[in-house]
Amino acid sequence: MQSVQSVIKCKAAVAWEPNKPVTIEEIEVAPPEADEVRIKIVATSVCHTDLYHLFEGMHKDGFPVVLGHEAAGIVESVGSGVTEFQPGQIQILWEYCTIITLLEDPDLSFTQGDFSNAMSPLRSRLTCKGKKVYQFSGISTFSEYTVVKQINVTKIDPAAPLDKVCLLGCGICTGYGAAVNTAKVEEGSTCAVFGLGAIGLAAVMGCKNAGAKRIIAVDINPDKFEKAKVFGATDFVNPKDHDKPISQVLFEMTNGGVDYSLECVGNVGVMRSALESTIPAWGVSVIVGWTTLHDFSAPPGDLIAGRTWKGTMFGGFKSKDGVPEMVNAYMNKKLMVDEFITDNMTFDQINDAIEMMKHGKCIRTVLTFTE
Amino acid sequence: MQSVQSVIKCKAAVAWEPNKPVTIEEIEVAPPEADEVRIKIVATSVCHTDLYHLFEGMHKDGFPVVLGHEAAGIVESVGSGVTEFQPGQIQILWEYCTIITLLEDPDLSFTQGDFSNAMSPLRSRLTCKGKKVYQFSGISTFSEYTVVKQINVTKIDPAAPLDKVCLLGCGICTGYGAAVNTAKVEEGSTCAVFGLGAIGLAAVMGCKNAGAKRIIAVDINPDKFEKAKVFGATDFVNPKDHDKPISQVLFEMTNGGVDYSLECVGNVGVMRSALESTIPAWGVSVIVGWTTLHDFSAPPGDLIAGRTWKGTMFGGFKSKDGVPEMVNAYMNKKLMVDEFITDNMTFDQINDAIEMMKHGKCIRTVLTFTE
Repeated sequence: MQSVQSVIKCKAAVAWEPNKPVTIEEIEVAPPEADEVRIKIVATSVCHTDLYHLFEGMHKDGFPVVLGHEAAGIVESVGSGVTEFQPGQIQILWEYCTIITLLEDPDLSFTQGDFSNAMSPLRSRLTCKGKKVYQFSGISTFSEYTVVKQINVTKIDPAAPLDKVCLLGCGICTGYGAAVNTAKVEEGSTCAVFGLGAIGLAAVMGCKNAGAKRIIAVDINPDKFEKAKVFGATDFVNPKDHDKPISQVLFEMTNGGVDYSLECVGNVGVMRSALESTIPAWGVSVIVGWTTLHDFSAPPGDLIAGRTWKGTMFGGFKSKDGVPEMVNAYMNKKLMVDEFITDNMTFDQINDAIEMMKHGKCIRTVLTFTE
Repeated sequence: MQSVQSVIKCKAAVAWEPNKPVTIEEIEVAPPEADEVRIKIVATSVCHTDLYHLFEGMHKDGFPVVLGHEAAGIVESVGSGVTEFQPGQIQILWEYCTIITLLEDPDLSFTQGDFSNAMSPLRSRLTCKGKKVYQFSGISTFSEYTVVKQINVTKIDPAAPLDKVCLLGCGICTGYGAAVNTAKVEEGSTCAVFGLGAIGLAAVMGCKNAGAKRIIAVDINPDKFEKAKVFGATDFVNPKDHDKPISQVLFEMTNGGVDYSLECVGNVGVMRSALESTIPAWGVSVIVGWTTLHDFSAPPGDLIAGRTWKGTMFGGFKSKDGVPEMVNAYMNKKLMVDEFITDNMTFDQINDAIEMMKHGKCIRTVLTFTE
């Protein structure tokens, strides 16, 4: 490692092409430029969005890339114009706040569901073997060091354990906020959460903390129901146990539909089921899962009856306030985070963590950098 | 005409089959049963929803039927349990408040965008030539008399001119309320209204009254722009004048998208254009137009970016309060109604009125019953 404001050489997991394991490489991390900060990553976790990029063939041109966007670390150095952060003591949490970045930075295009230019090679501060490497979502946390726009990071309670709160960088905030900020779940309401990965479990917790009296957890893998109960689910439905459409099952269970539904799968068929599971006159359905493989569709009458269909990115949390508040809620024992962690590994075991996530064998695996 | 609480024989326009003119017939109107009222219609107008039923082949089994659902009249008699209305002086306005009816009456099914059983033959109080005749939307105002559930009617200011405020029975409230109640247009915002029929014009007026600073009127018929200006439109776009998608045109005009868009056409392609014309991070798009011919579709990213997609029925007005308030607004010159009326005819000219509406030659034609 070299001194501040020079190029840093460090270890990173580089994905060279789709559908292949990542390889641990020495990369060069350029000094931060204007409005940028260079971060030393302490802990990062694998989120399904990383896998989506790696395995589902969406971004053939987006390679080589350093994936990872859910992490916590420490500021190493800052570029010109950065006053909010200083090198050293300050701990930071990565934020996946693409929306805000987009609004302020037209260079990061996000139109019509296309993420492919989230960080162009021209903008990346990472190189490997003399070649520019993409920064996934403009972030790239599967690396000992990375450089990001200051708007992508936020200061958190210095007492927070980074190997836990790193999970608040994406998945938990996304699911929890989808319930609390986007759906705006009300006390006494009935909710349905489709898909019980980390985001779905966080959505269950959001519904519970918002005061929902009934939370129906839906998943085709019944092994996930026990964990969903920990986060507050009251009812459990496996679509495979029913011959009729799941929306009809929920309609009958609730005598007319749920007040709120949250789609945490990323499947357009499930998105429509989630919408149609809500009560026609005032149901609110939120798309949390991500896909660009297909368009969703539904008859206009689904909405004209009175429903609202929304989507959420990073759970509707505002860049600089949302995450520190979530960290504080965790520190004050108002928010579960540890319960999402099913495995702890070192960074070198990243391919094992990716494989476990790919095959649904974990909720979240936390990877730490050991020196 | 016979005495109260016996069968009334009167004139009505019966649609015997799709795509054919209606015929003026003598029909029998049964006495109102429990929670029902029998109404003498004074004025009614033709709304595109009537034509939709008649011409677009959606309800092949829904014939014979008496169409019409936008009207004003006087209570003739009431069934048991009706305390809110008395025969005689009280003027009423028809309301197309299917949502409320549905919630309280499972017999009127409304699921998955299917209206076909809105009033079953078993429930109809109308017969013609010994045969049960459907009541369109449970209402049927193309008749001198009809019988409806008391929840479908509301008392209005007795001083209101029925040949004007009959228009508040559907179209104006639908478009106006879509902007004010459903989209909740905010002061200083930028709006786009797609389709400039009566509902679109009412939506423009709703945006204007809500304080929108810019209202972009979109229609492929530029002849409609002059009228739209009367209701408050500030910008006018004919998609035929542009080679690029209309959403892109509006994006460029507004430097990133409109805050609110309202689809008042009933075309699933326009619904998507309207959604994608809104600013990704917080745009709200409302489907006001009606169709069951196709499903709408869009990429999940359209919503995940932060947009909200809603639908509206009867503009989100509550059954008993909304219409009297709109009538009062008209009486206090806070709401334009006369400006929607392009023609006045007698009821016998109903086929002329239907043809004019079908060919876009009018905004609203008011039909009155002359004795």
